[in-house]
Amino acid sequence: MAGVEFVKGHGTENDFVVLPDPAGTLALTEARVRALCDRSRGLGADGVLRVVPTRAVVDAPAGVDDSLWFMDYRNADGSVAEMCGNGVRVFARYLVETGLASEGRFTIGTRAGERGVTVHPDRTVTVDMGPARVVGRSAATVDGTAFPGVAVDVGNPHLVCRTDTPVDDLDLTRPPGHDPVVFPHGVNVEFVNVLGEDALRMRVHERGVGETRSCGTGTVATVAAWLHLAGRTSGRATVAVPGGQVTVTVDERGSTLTGPAVLVAGGELDEQWWADNGF
Amino acid sequence: MAGVEFVKGHGTENDFVVLPDPAGTLALTEARVRALCDRSRGLGADGVLRVVPTRAVVDAPAGVDDSLWFMDYRNADGSVAEMCGNGVRVFARYLVETGLASEGRFTIGTRAGERGVTVHPDRTVTVDMGPARVVGRSAATVDGTAFPGVAVDVGNPHLVCRTDTPVDDLDLTRPPGHDPVVFPHGVNVEFVNVLGEDALRMRVHERGVGETRSCGTGTVATVAAWLHLAGRTSGRATVAVPGGQVTVTVDERGSTLTGPAVLVAGGELDEQWWADNGF
Repeated sequence: MAGVEFVKGHGTENDFVVLPDPAGTLALTEARVRALCDRSRGLGADGVLRVVPTRAVVDAPAGVDDSLWFMDYRNADGSVAEMCGNGVRVFARYLVETGLASEGRFTIGTRAGERGVTVHPDRTVTVDMGPARVVGRSAATVDGTAFPGVAVDVGNPHLVCRTDTPVDDLDLTRPPGHDPVVFPHGVNVEFVNVLGEDALRMRVHERGVGETRSCGTGTVATVAAWLHLAGRTSGRATVAVPGGQVTVTVDERGSTLTGPAVLVAGGELDEQWWADNGF
Repeated sequence: MAGVEFVKGHGTENDFVVLPDPAGTLALTEARVRALCDRSRGLGADGVLRVVPTRAVVDAPAGVDDSLWFMDYRNADGSVAEMCGNGVRVFARYLVETGLASEGRFTIGTRAGERGVTVHPDRTVTVDMGPARVVGRSAATVDGTAFPGVAVDVGNPHLVCRTDTPVDDLDLTRPPGHDPVVFPHGVNVEFVNVLGEDALRMRVHERGVGETRSCGTGTVATVAAWLHLAGRTSGRATVAVPGGQVTVTVDERGSTLTGPAVLVAGGELDEQWWADNGF
């Protein structure tokens, strides 16, 4: 069973295979990413997080310090992705658990630039998520009902629909309707109930994916929209998602996302399996 | 990351977490089985295979030799199960890879009694599947169309419907209709195309589960029914299923199932995760 090392973990049930690659030599083909993420043939995950020195990443963006650990994030279909608010928590906790970083605040490299993270003593992780900009109004439709919403840009587009309809009653098996003029490239749609003071509940339909257990940028967009509807530009709220609970802060300069990062298991991939799934 | 050891593997994409328990002391609660099999919070699998000495199994059936390795099989919902033709291949290969058994033929204990297995040099595994008895005729319905079939008992009930309709065209998202008088406890339904001499293609809807990538007893029932329709009582055929291909032999005394057993990865469960998911 001697082979490529891995750790499996999840953040609010968004799950990842972490692959340490300190020498930057791992042959992580698209086929291997797909096989790793396949839930019957592989380990099963929403994505792969390769842990590699920034200096060994040929397509690392300018401005990321060469000395940082870089999160090389791949979607389950094998494609390269920029950032993931849930994945970066798992990545940060992995660095601390393996001694590659120390508890507290440090910086990691991503394809979206450098990100500050803080691993807390209780193993929750805070991630700097950058600015969340309210850009307008629109509406989503579910089963013929229109839900007015606030459009928020968190690097990717969101439409946050606060509603008094219990979000658990919505049928999100199909994509909610949206205005293609406002969102020509599609949109992630959040439906939000206000549970109490500074406490929100959210379900999310991610564009191109479907309903998910959690969406990091979606929780940030949700809190930004909720503040906006209250005439505020800064504040803090908890967001309960199907996969757990996170806390989001938003102010004029940026936002943070704090949530759990769970490590499930670690070990080695079977050498024969790795060889058989290379191409 | 020091904790409970595991191996993840699959047989024709029916996947399992293998847990070695040589001392018979592993506290494998229903909650832990459910957490292990959860595809977001755990490792993800269709079931768990505990590897334990028969002498340490309090509910081992009479007639299973105390000196055998016992396959303690649990379904993903935490319930105890008797046998699984795909799981037992993974179990047998695990024993050989870890040196607990030698390549070639040996016997393992299961809740359905002793089973003979053979691990071949190419790492495919043959499993003795016991008798397959043709017990009558019935029919299944899909989208209002009736498919005549042969009822076969392989320890569990099957209805095998040979058809010229390409099985890939059938909608098996809902359970096929069956005659509740013939099958009062439900039935596993197989749809089968004859591809050529001794070559079959099958899709299966498992009772209480839905369509699966593979069903060991279903492939045995399929070959027994195919032989029966040809007026034969013994023979051999390959069966292509969505998760791969197996070979089945049937004769008057019993049946065998030969197919791949793939080990994906191995390692240790996180101690904190194991503790958090005990109850």
